Amino acid sequence: MNPVLDGIAPSIIRAINARKRPGDIDLGLGEPTIRPDPCPFDAATAWVRENGLPYTPNAGFARLRAQVAEYVGLPERTASDNAVITVGSEEALYLALKAAIDPSRDEVLIVEPCYLAYPKLCVLEGIRHRMVAMDPADDFCPSAARVLDALGPDTRMIVLNTPNNPTGRVWPESELRALADGLTARPGEPVRVLSDEVYRELYFGEAAPVSIGALWPHALVAGSLSKSNALTGLRLGWLVGDAKTVAAATKVHQLVNTAASTFSQVVAMEIFADRATLAAHRPHYAGQRAKLEGWMREAGLRWAPIEGAFYCMVRLPDHLAADSLAAAEALLERHRVLATPGVAFGDSGEGWIRLSWVAEPDDLRAGIERIARFFAEG
Amino acid sequence: MNPVLDGIAPSIIRAINARKRPGDIDLGLGEPTIRPDPCPFDAATAWVRENGLPYTPNAGFARLRAQVAEYVGLPERTASDNAVITVGSEEALYLALKAAIDPSRDEVLIVEPCYLAYPKLCVLEGIRHRMVAMDPADDFCPSAARVLDALGPDTRMIVLNTPNNPTGRVWPESELRALADGLTARPGEPVRVLSDEVYRELYFGEAAPVSIGALWPHALVAGSLSKSNALTGLRLGWLVGDAKTVAAATKVHQLVNTAASTFSQVVAMEIFADRATLAAHRPHYAGQRAKLEGWMREAGLRWAPIEGAFYCMVRLPDHLAADSLAAAEALLERHRVLATPGVAFGDSGEGWIRLSWVAEPDDLRAGIERIARFFAEG
Repeated sequence: MNPVLDGIAPSIIRAINARKRPGDIDLGLGEPTIRPDPCPFDAATAWVRENGLPYTPNAGFARLRAQVAEYVGLPERTASDNAVITVGSEEALYLALKAAIDPSRDEVLIVEPCYLAYPKLCVLEGIRHRMVAMDPADDFCPSAARVLDALGPDTRMIVLNTPNNPTGRVWPESELRALADGLTARPGEPVRVLSDEVYRELYFGEAAPVSIGALWPHALVAGSLSKSNALTGLRLGWLVGDAKTVAAATKVHQLVNTAASTFSQVVAMEIFADRATLAAHRPHYAGQRAKLEGWMREAGLRWAPIEGAFYCMVRLPDHLAADSLAAAEALLERHRVLATPGVAFGDSGEGWIRLSWVAEPDDLRAGIERIARFFAEG
Repeated sequence: MNPVLDGIAPSIIRAINARKRPGDIDLGLGEPTIRPDPCPFDAATAWVRENGLPYTPNAGFARLRAQVAEYVGLPERTASDNAVITVGSEEALYLALKAAIDPSRDEVLIVEPCYLAYPKLCVLEGIRHRMVAMDPADDFCPSAARVLDALGPDTRMIVLNTPNNPTGRVWPESELRALADGLTARPGEPVRVLSDEVYRELYFGEAAPVSIGALWPHALVAGSLSKSNALTGLRLGWLVGDAKTVAAATKVHQLVNTAASTFSQVVAMEIFADRATLAAHRPHYAGQRAKLEGWMREAGLRWAPIEGAFYCMVRLPDHLAADSLAAAEALLERHRVLATPGVAFGDSGEGWIRLSWVAEPDDLRAGIERIARFFAEG
């Protein structure tokens, strides 16, 4: 067996999810509960009747690649050869690390709190990596200075995620610009930024989040239709960047799974043909967020500003803050609410729990009330 | 960039395919031209209306895993935890190599002629590998003795493919038994066999091909619905084996792409619910094969026995046999027939060209006639 697998810890999220009983309130789930529009599926089924279901080119249908590259919209990187269609954004992250990093030489710097697949993929690929934490005392506010200070002589890639899981924070343009300026000023080989933008459509400020790719030519952007369109099971994602890196990523993609599902690609082309559908669920999330904030305020909770995605980091009271895993276990055991311990997103998440607020409003409200009661217990 | 990518040669198949012009007869294609049954797609679309499209568990729906494990039917390995659902058989091959091999220690032995993704995946993963050729003088007849003779002290896995691409040969039970007996007799850690059985349903003898997994407990079987059901674009495959290795493969699968398409999995469950549909295309291929053999006999070609799959290795005449790539290029240039040079499947394929006989009968017949004319030229 491959010994690197022993070095990959089982998921804390999965472990606590496995303890859920029927009737528990689930604020742990990382996927939309809203129903997707079935119309693109009807269209794709009609397409199968007409065309069968052959392979697409390895990198995906040229039309879809062009739609995606144009949608992501990185300056001078909007042609079909700037995008490869992947099996969800997860594969895009894998391809970026596998293709762009030389494991014998390069180091990757990962911004946390984060989805722990980033460091686990590095372990799987034998890539040296370090974590750089955003400040919990500052509610995990994105900070270019922290990232720039953490760069080492071998750092060749920074992995960041905006809008962020688990914090709900969005990297503002000013901080992204500071990051790009800092990287520009750095001598030697440019440091790439791998930007996971899978929550790109779920933002609650006035303007859409800016991508580091708009400001830094050495960026790779991962994304998918999973969260915007409630299509996690479609497994349709992308990696967008310079054509040379996209070609290298495609070489890996071809070897590891040939191509993404043709059916999923036809569904995606239907969706991109009416791009407004990508933003169609945003009002739903904005309404849910407003309710959530009202209930949390009423309950006296403290939370990090929710600027995007569908998560919220809630600060544990002092008597629980030393062990978020124990707190989440007690919350589930005694109050039957499933929340994710902050430590599941890196050491900097200790002292917090993450709520996923995609549940039904009644469940969400009851969950908040129970959390407040739990916090108030001695 | 990752320097291993430089060591992976571009595909010869792809290069010659790129030279095809409109109107050329395509006997190069590696996928069915028959149309798939659209009914499972209607059912899956109805399922989306009812259920949305959430993630499945990482290893796939438990029901589908059980259906697949039972279908593959390895003794004592027919439970759901003996199968992981993958993005085509290609991902199954990748997962088997990635999870089961220790690149610092183990060597892989690959039976050729073969699909060259096997050695390329080894290069991608930094896995030492050697090729062992079946004898061209014996029409690539599967030989356990050749494989057993080639085992080295560090060999920990044998990769074989039956029914075979490109040779059309099927490993007979007697040779598989000889292989299993030889492996049983070998002292030390057991050598795994990774058996690519993606053409499992396409056989032309009386009995279905036997799997090495029926005779050897340390086998891993890769397969998919791509060829049997003309669903290459579904990207729905599997790896079946002992539960421990399947769990390790699932750990990799989870990190590299989370899970296979939920939609594709629902389609697959529909297909497995009426398992006869997996064999439904066999009479079509049997009929096409009979026609092909008649035309090749008439044209005076020499070919290796076609026992399975939808390929045929045709021997080049002496004046062309030294360079199958040049022969295939000349055939395309002068007679407008695309065939794949045998060398694209390993050194042992030199002196042959592979015909894929999924084309329309008129095209196939015309292609054979043109090949005969080409062979007859001085």
